[in-house]
Amino acid sequence: MRLSRSFLPTLKENPSEAQITSHRLMLRAGMIRQTAAGIYAWLPTGLRVLRNIANIVRQEQDAIGAQELLMPTMQSADLWKRSGRYDAYGPEMLRIQDRHERDMLFGPTNEEMVTDLFGQAIKSYKELPQVLYQIQWKFRDEVRPRFGVMRGREFYMKDAYSFDLDHAAAVDTYRRMMLSYLRTFQRLGVRAIPMRADTGPIGGELSHEFLILAPTGESGVFFDSALEEQDWVGENIDVNDRGALGAFFTNLTSFYAATDEMHDEAAWASVPAERRREGRGIEVGHIFNFGRKYTQSMDIAVSGPDGAPLHPEMGSYGIGVSRLVAAIIEASHDENGIIWPESVAPFRAVIINLKNGDTQCDAICEQLYAAAPGHLLYDDRAERAGAKFADADLLGHPWQLIVGPRGAKEGKVEVKNRRTGERTEETVEGALALIQKTGC
Amino acid sequence: MRLSRSFLPTLKENPSEAQITSHRLMLRAGMIRQTAAGIYAWLPTGLRVLRNIANIVRQEQDAIGAQELLMPTMQSADLWKRSGRYDAYGPEMLRIQDRHERDMLFGPTNEEMVTDLFGQAIKSYKELPQVLYQIQWKFRDEVRPRFGVMRGREFYMKDAYSFDLDHAAAVDTYRRMMLSYLRTFQRLGVRAIPMRADTGPIGGELSHEFLILAPTGESGVFFDSALEEQDWVGENIDVNDRGALGAFFTNLTSFYAATDEMHDEAAWASVPAERRREGRGIEVGHIFNFGRKYTQSMDIAVSGPDGAPLHPEMGSYGIGVSRLVAAIIEASHDENGIIWPESVAPFRAVIINLKNGDTQCDAICEQLYAAAPGHLLYDDRAERAGAKFADADLLGHPWQLIVGPRGAKEGKVEVKNRRTGERTEETVEGALALIQKTGC
Repeated sequence: MRLSRSFLPTLKENPSEAQITSHRLMLRAGMIRQTAAGIYAWLPTGLRVLRNIANIVRQEQDAIGAQELLMPTMQSADLWKRSGRYDAYGPEMLRIQDRHERDMLFGPTNEEMVTDLFGQAIKSYKELPQVLYQIQWKFRDEVRPRFGVMRGREFYMKDAYSFDLDHAAAVDTYRRMMLSYLRTFQRLGVRAIPMRADTGPIGGELSHEFLILAPTGESGVFFDSALEEQDWVGENIDVNDRGALGAFFTNLTSFYAATDEMHDEAAWASVPAERRREGRGIEVGHIFNFGRKYTQSMDIAVSGPDGAPLHPEMGSYGIGVSRLVAAIIEASHDENGIIWPESVAPFRAVIINLKNGDTQCDAICEQLYAAAPGHLLYDDRAERAGAKFADADLLGHPWQLIVGPRGAKEGKVEVKNRRTGERTEETVEGALALIQKTGC
Repeated sequence: MRLSRSFLPTLKENPSEAQITSHRLMLRAGMIRQTAAGIYAWLPTGLRVLRNIANIVRQEQDAIGAQELLMPTMQSADLWKRSGRYDAYGPEMLRIQDRHERDMLFGPTNEEMVTDLFGQAIKSYKELPQVLYQIQWKFRDEVRPRFGVMRGREFYMKDAYSFDLDHAAAVDTYRRMMLSYLRTFQRLGVRAIPMRADTGPIGGELSHEFLILAPTGESGVFFDSALEEQDWVGENIDVNDRGALGAFFTNLTSFYAATDEMHDEAAWASVPAERRREGRGIEVGHIFNFGRKYTQSMDIAVSGPDGAPLHPEMGSYGIGVSRLVAAIIEASHDENGIIWPESVAPFRAVIINLKNGDTQCDAICEQLYAAAPGHLLYDDRAERAGAKFADADLLGHPWQLIVGPRGAKEGKVEVKNRRTGERTEETVEGALALIQKTGC
């Protein structure tokens, strides 16, 4: 993308409404704009990051055999009356009447709808397990939306739902999903620690939250630092190997890790003092097993092995996709701006032309740009070098390809790594080879 | 995808609520399920088609330099009060009050919001033109939703908005978008005829609808058959070549083509009788130039060449992405089911195992499936051959790879082309080579 022609409105000043770093940087980098309280438009570079994250989440869901579908945002209140949650949900549910005065709502979550769809389609235990997921916009009418997309009202979420024959199979599915989440977060360039969690209004007994450590996190977290030395992504584990999955899960959950809500002073005291870590964390995922809560209340059954109807065991599994954009920034930035992990960066590199109009500079920049115009941002604006450097650091592309008149004479490009600050001089071919290793 | 494990609930009977072919076939093929009046969930195969269409639309928008962003579904009523459309829009707008009793709405279109975003970001005429687009869910509260996703309430739409310095530049943008649309529809495997259209509540003078011919279309259409022999996609036209673009547009719009709303008997009479074609059509796209209507009413201006503020000329450009799924089926099916154009098919081919459990049949099927598991559907169900053939025809994959015990002994696969019905016998390698040419 050529910056001179692009819709990328960066801000020089810190916007006064932004209280935390990610909100400030997303506004300054032209990624989002607020259109109503807690509701945001995603501008082109913001959307690229959002989509990169969604694609990695999707690939890792597909890798464990989950099937993607897409449910509508508008739901009928009738569905929620069947489960009994319509009255229970409270004012965070955006309730609507359509022109025929039928009660509708903007889905905050989809247990009811997916259970109903499952019940229409799946008739026999032989078709179990089923894991269905979607990545869709949801709405929760927060009384005080804040911190940008971190706690917005309309947000983008991956929500998966599993249906299993019995509790043992449901626990396997739960563990498989936990492994999938850890692999997902690793690919996103962050570490999210699974912590025992309260199941809240969704119900059930088995639940974990995934928290990214950051000083701006809304939850206090307590964990055993020995966790950090464990195998987090089970690289060699086949997700269908129940034994390996069980061993992985048992090991990882044997170490103390809890948010303040679930903190247990007695258990904490048994962690060796030098291994106790306290801090704050941002919740980016939450998984639940809640048994037959919905299949029973909505009376959804399949025929079991003996022909008798059987209510499948369910779980639900969320990842906050739009929230992750902000959480990754909270975990990866410096005083000059964002430092994107390569897998989610909007562009692999920015090409900085230090002297627009100089024949040699222009030629080298165009040659670089032609290599991968969809993956490169070309700063071809008539701005001074300082402004271009500042924007490059603010936007946080993994690499900066700096083309000035002196180097251009010799066909050389200065390549800066945004994360390390390291600079090397490369030929055009060398620079392209370097950035082509970048995954984004 | 292995059919035995997939969420693909086909129906043997015609559902009584479906009045038109596409609705019937989408329900029977397990692509969609209704969750409330005029509101649908997209099941896995339906979602694959929806996404294939969206991706082609996206690529062709990107190819003319349009920039993708994503606006929220929930909008503030204040924006619409600024343009004066809040009161004018009528009961198709889904109006909502949030918990603080602020007036909101589910966006039926986005002229106001995008104009506001443009105004915050673009300050100088030098940054023009700008073409912004999104592919996002919208809501129109139809009084009588019908025909499945053809006339649903929550629907998926590509909407683009252009901002130009003056009318001449806006007309160029309009023509470029028309060419982009024709190329898009060609890639989708359908022909949509551009017809002069009424501008309706969006306003403006220059407007075309794009209609796919189908007996179930909601509009009557009248066109000169000479149109069909013209260059429709301008393969060799550079979209930035104003002259070529103008000649292309002038030629294509010189032939009579109008919906019943705009039909002009006098002009029609001048078309040679043997070239007059009448029929019905489904609207899948609509483009408008409406000048300064919104930039003036909302007072959005950039600084012009002489420093004075200047209201850019706008256009808006829609493609009904979810409606296209149905429209393509209306244009491409037979009595047995859907016939997907290769570019949008959910799977390239279905592998039909005629004898599950037969060592040779299973081995060949697995060998075929391993070649591209993400692009192939493997019918590994314990069903009789007739049911598998019927479902394969119903689902409409471009190719069927039929593996029976007799052929399997000789390592042979029967390959059936869904569109032509042609069957050939191939080696495994030959069969894979055939289907790998398929684009999907």
